[in-house]
Amino acid sequence: MISRDDCVELDGRDELGALRAQFVLDDALIYLDGNSLGPVSASARRRVSETVDVEWSRGLVRGWGDGWMAAPTRVGDRIAGLIGARPGEVVVADTLTIALAKLIGGALDLRRDRHVVLTDVANFHSDIYIVNAVAARAGRPVTVKTVDRATLDRELNDDVALVMLTHVDYRTGEMLDMGAITTLVHDAGALMLWDLAHSTGAVLVDVTGDDVDFAAGCGYKYLNGGPGAPAFMYVRSTWQGLLENPLPGWLGHARPFDFELEYEPAIGMQAFVTSSPSIIALASLDGALDVFEAVTMDQVRAKSLALTDLFIDLVEERMNGLFEVVTPREHQRRASQVALRHDDAYAIIQSLIDRNVIGDFRAPDICRFGFTPLYLRYSDVYDAVEQLSAIMRSEAYLDPRFAVRNAVT
Amino acid sequence: MISRDDCVELDGRDELGALRAQFVLDDALIYLDGNSLGPVSASARRRVSETVDVEWSRGLVRGWGDGWMAAPTRVGDRIAGLIGARPGEVVVADTLTIALAKLIGGALDLRRDRHVVLTDVANFHSDIYIVNAVAARAGRPVTVKTVDRATLDRELNDDVALVMLTHVDYRTGEMLDMGAITTLVHDAGALMLWDLAHSTGAVLVDVTGDDVDFAAGCGYKYLNGGPGAPAFMYVRSTWQGLLENPLPGWLGHARPFDFELEYEPAIGMQAFVTSSPSIIALASLDGALDVFEAVTMDQVRAKSLALTDLFIDLVEERMNGLFEVVTPREHQRRASQVALRHDDAYAIIQSLIDRNVIGDFRAPDICRFGFTPLYLRYSDVYDAVEQLSAIMRSEAYLDPRFAVRNAVT
Repeated sequence: MISRDDCVELDGRDELGALRAQFVLDDALIYLDGNSLGPVSASARRRVSETVDVEWSRGLVRGWGDGWMAAPTRVGDRIAGLIGARPGEVVVADTLTIALAKLIGGALDLRRDRHVVLTDVANFHSDIYIVNAVAARAGRPVTVKTVDRATLDRELNDDVALVMLTHVDYRTGEMLDMGAITTLVHDAGALMLWDLAHSTGAVLVDVTGDDVDFAAGCGYKYLNGGPGAPAFMYVRSTWQGLLENPLPGWLGHARPFDFELEYEPAIGMQAFVTSSPSIIALASLDGALDVFEAVTMDQVRAKSLALTDLFIDLVEERMNGLFEVVTPREHQRRASQVALRHDDAYAIIQSLIDRNVIGDFRAPDICRFGFTPLYLRYSDVYDAVEQLSAIMRSEAYLDPRFAVRNAVT
Repeated sequence: MISRDDCVELDGRDELGALRAQFVLDDALIYLDGNSLGPVSASARRRVSETVDVEWSRGLVRGWGDGWMAAPTRVGDRIAGLIGARPGEVVVADTLTIALAKLIGGALDLRRDRHVVLTDVANFHSDIYIVNAVAARAGRPVTVKTVDRATLDRELNDDVALVMLTHVDYRTGEMLDMGAITTLVHDAGALMLWDLAHSTGAVLVDVTGDDVDFAAGCGYKYLNGGPGAPAFMYVRSTWQGLLENPLPGWLGHARPFDFELEYEPAIGMQAFVTSSPSIIALASLDGALDVFEAVTMDQVRAKSLALTDLFIDLVEERMNGLFEVVTPREHQRRASQVALRHDDAYAIIQSLIDRNVIGDFRAPDICRFGFTPLYLRYSDVYDAVEQLSAIMRSEAYLDPRFAVRNAVT
């Protein structure tokens, strides 16, 4: 049996333990939803306040000359370091779905002789909506095949232009083999676009080593950039200058202040900025990234696996058979969340929230728990499982007030 | 001769005079660039801080259930009141160019039997880039004709699907006749999309009375929402449910948390939200709109005209013949800025900035001055002209340090 003391001891030896103090977190709350929205860090707070109270207040429009113009690529370079990209390969702007629209649209233009896009039936629904919408406007017939990713190799052929997959399944937490799949896709002559929403800042990603063509991810999950933080786009340097931004705007022009009627893309990732991104939103993300300066992604990954191992072990030890552990146990197939299946998943999550343990529900029957190594303690995991166990034992989740589903959850 | 005392007297009688105290403005600075980026208001500052320090810090992911989800349409409804739109016709999300992409793409699908889009050669360059890019992906041959707007009537025929114009010329400050042009366009069976970037919050706009189909505008100019504040989209209620969002995402789905693979748009303007917008950026804009609660747009417009009248009168009185006043003198054709043409426009603007009068340069030869009635005083206008006059008299602008153009201005 794992005891709370064992967990407290692990906390004492945790080399990332000191980072928790950089976040605004109520000790009465156990936050297992950083994979949906990361918490506020002191540095994010400080950068927002500097941006409003100094840069905007005092600099006014001069802020654009004093650093705002470069913010999308500068913050992009900071994210590049977390996903194995090189400087100049990442830019921050727009929302994730718009970022995907740019990359999908551009990629289809690079493979004009091919007519199929493959994606995964278990992909996040927004990704499926946008790939369908962009394919419908490719300027030629393009079919989106939404397949079971297990059968991807059978669907790959010389008519496939692009494969778009999400690296980590938002529901199950399963992590795909980015290197192997990218190789398979390239062997078929297709391009590979990865959605890194549930990967960036939580697991090891090596877009360079894995020869990834394009990727995008969001700033508000494990990067803790704030609600609706801007997304990032990655374009391997060999594609830059070839991949066109199908949603061009003046900030992506080579000479934005020459007001030319003909669009000429800027060199590098600046070409993927469309019009002025929110500088306050960028500042929050920029500040949030400071926390990563003190750690390596290897350290983050090691602790993430230790936390999810502990959670799974405790759930099985205390509540054996009550839940199906949907998330793979093999480390190489597990990201930084654990999904438990139960018919009463919705009520269980509401009941936990009522006890200050925040996880989330994913339809139809998943209790989802995210584990962010930057601020979670081993003892938090222990306490969360204790609460879950108490709810299950007492059947507190059957209280009618936990049964009514909100439209927004 | 108009004296400074005359201007101080006007300030004393100004019914909007008290609003200046709501902004963070250095009295040593005369800010005539609110048409590029509006200044910080106390209410914008407060809303940003509440969002970071309360809603995000304490609410964490629960913020989405507690109001963030409704923010795009709620803030949209506040802007609706400034442009003559009805509640439910405006939503705030994305940047202006992305907002235009959605409206152009959707509008082209409504006129599948027509093959031409008309726009104005003097339109803002970003608008021209995006209309070209979207037309190239319409799924059928669509030609964008970039014409002289004076000849628009000659270009209108039954092959024109859409006309996209900017209500106020960003360079000259000329305001077009929205009602007359929209009628002309409708008479030809085409749809009308107005870019309200330089109109919203500064001049009278009546999208309902003028029977406008679609419009978009930005939050960071006269609305003072902050650098890169999100844009807004207007879709007349009669088009809602018919106009499709060509860049769909999960937040625009009828049931975003049911994670359905088929896209089904939400009712109303929510369908034009793609994925999570920055809530911090929205909060800043939301707060900035508080200032408008205390005024009517008629009051704003009256003071705007008085300020620009004063500026033009003073320039002509003090510097007759030195500049060409490019902005129309007729009130019905003038927005809230004044453009002065001069071969040394760039150096003149730099020299003014050096003396704490902030205007901006627009290539190749325009000194541009924006007049925001919410915080500008008649005496500010007087003092700005005094500085300009001093620079011209002394030829201070010929100092070599004002000659070198930055890439970012």
